[in-house]
Amino acid sequence: MLTDLFTPSVQHSLDLAGIFVFAISGALLAVRKNFDVFGMAVLAEATALGGGLIRDLIIGAVPPAAFTDLGYFITPLVATVIVFFLHPEVERITKAVNAFDAAGLGLFCVAGTVKAHSHGLGLTFAATLGLTTAVGGGVLRDVLAHEVPNLLRWDRDLYAVPAMVGSTMAALLIHYDALNVTTSMISAATAFVLRLLAMRYNWRAPRAWHRRSAATEDPATGSGAV
Amino acid sequence: MLTDLFTPSVQHSLDLAGIFVFAISGALLAVRKNFDVFGMAVLAEATALGGGLIRDLIIGAVPPAAFTDLGYFITPLVATVIVFFLHPEVERITKAVNAFDAAGLGLFCVAGTVKAHSHGLGLTFAATLGLTTAVGGGVLRDVLAHEVPNLLRWDRDLYAVPAMVGSTMAALLIHYDALNVTTSMISAATAFVLRLLAMRYNWRAPRAWHRRSAATEDPATGSGAV
Amino acid sequence: MLTDLFTPSVQHSLDLAGIFVFAISGALLAVRKNFDVFGMAVLAEATALGGGLIRDLIIGAVPPAAFTDLGYFITPLVATVIVFFLHPEVERITKAVNAFDAAGLGLFCVAGTVKAHSHGLGLTFAATLGLTTAVGGGVLRDVLAHEVPNLLRWDRDLYAVPAMVGSTMAALLIHYDALNVTTSMISAATAFVLRLLAMRYNWRAPRAWHRRSAATEDPATGSGAV
Repeated sequence: MLTDLFTPSVQHSLDLAGIFVFAISGALLAVRKNFDVFGMAVLAEATALGGGLIRDLIIGAVPPAAFTDLGYFITPLVATVIVFFLHPEVERITKAVNAFDAAGLGLFCVAGTVKAHSHGLGLTFAATLGLTTAVGGGVLRDVLAHEVPNLLRWDRDLYAVPAMVGSTMAALLIHYDALNVTTSMISAATAFVLRLLAMRYNWRAPRAWHRRSAATEDPATGSGAV
Repeated sequence: MLTDLFTPSVQHSLDLAGIFVFAISGALLAVRKNFDVFGMAVLAEATALGGGLIRDLIIGAVPPAAFTDLGYFITPLVATVIVFFLHPEVERITKAVNAFDAAGLGLFCVAGTVKAHSHGLGLTFAATLGLTTAVGGGVLRDVLAHEVPNLLRWDRDLYAVPAMVGSTMAALLIHYDALNVTTSMISAATAFVLRLLAMRYNWRAPRAWHRRSAATEDPATGSGAV
Repeated sequence: MLTDLFTPSVQHSLDLAGIFVFAISGALLAVRKNFDVFGMAVLAEATALGGGLIRDLIIGAVPPAAFTDLGYFITPLVATVIVFFLHPEVERITKAVNAFDAAGLGLFCVAGTVKAHSHGLGLTFAATLGLTTAVGGGVLRDVLAHEVPNLLRWDRDLYAVPAMVGSTMAALLIHYDALNVTTSMISAATAFVLRLLAMRYNWRAPRAWHRRSAATEDPATGSGAV
């Protein structure tokens, strides 16, 4: 079974690590938005489990993993408690948090691709759902918190592309029957390193050509309005 | 059957009552947002049926109850018509509307917990989905209306906690095999009374500790920016 | 089979045409919001496939058509590339784009009604899901782009009503066993023409009665605040 690449305990530990770091980012946004402790918990759960939840609904894996595994459910609550008491300290180590988030991105895009394929989806769609697993929680977090999704903004470092590379690698490995622990870790690591490089060198994606011609619609405040 | 606690007609009447009061709150928000009559109907339907819809998708009960029961579908339209013609009068009895909304909260958190458990979910997840049933419609209403979800805001009276207490009580009653009409009504009534008390005494949930240290990020406008 | 009204290739071509024009509207909004090329692709996919995705999740048709048909997936990417390079030209032909969007609205409301009914839903709910198929993608587009959904705003020309008429006609045709290629095209054309007329004559839906009495809540900025 493709989903049994790792011993269950290793796979589960990696999942929980990814869930934890995503939950931290959700709880931190809730603090910045001045939400209360329940808002923190809701955003932590949504960020950590939202991507996998959307994937599971689409592939018909109900009830979703988020609603059958207590560890998945409790981990975001632990992250909420930590941020509740220590958020200035957590903010101070933003770089470390971002690095962990990049690791979560890498793990989730590969795991999501493998799970979607094991439920019978074609490779293109499996890779798309791998990407969805990795970035969906962050989009749900931003929509719930009433923010423009970071994923869509041009003034944010590349986030989708590293996940796309990782999930595409995983899909190709499945296609060539070469997916194993080593190669899937290489896929996740590639996404992880690309995301670190994107943050280090502020890689951005291009916007539509001839932005000038559209500038008359939102003059001066062009970027500020977003 | 746990879902057959009440005679079907009693259960159905309670459901319709909860749907009606939630729909009123959706239609009233649409009026405040200056939406047209179709926007009112969409928000009324989403507020009234959104929580149960999310629950049913997650537990795999498709098509969801919202799409198989005409009464569930028509009740929000009746609420829309009433608010359309009488919204100043409805606004004037806000306290009564809020009390009915609290009753809907109590009924939905218990009914949602029982339905989720009857579909095979564990008690923790059944209680979580009971909470989701009760508050999900309001979150969907606020997201569609382009508002910060009331559920997340610290400057709103406690809403999630009463529903959490009610759904936890229902889950414990299931666990101890003590769920019947009386005990489930007591669970719903507990959530109802807690919500009324939260509104009466302006109970708030705490925000993260040391808010001061984060204040430099959004000075002065701290609360206004939310 | 009701879903086999047309030869598969004709049905598929009509679907792809509707998907294409909806994707154009999503990509154009992304340009106006100053999103990058990946944001354009996400909004194009969400606008084009979101309505059908919601319908398929509700009727339990998983994995949804959007995740099994490569043409459905690639068409929005083609629209993204076109808008990326040619968006000033595309903006200049806004009227043509709007006419195509109206055509997509007509096709989707009928196709959605037929598909929902063929999965066992009652006629009222099939028509509701036809409407959802037609307008759901646009709502998802606006929520993701952090805008007030056009569907709800009173200062936008009628959009839901033409789709409601089209899906109701389709449901009535099914009821009277009179649905065939000709009558379903007449339903779609009716929705299409109504939408064109709504844009031509700026048809609006009414807001709640006695707006004046509510004006004290949002004075002066009443419409601007929406």
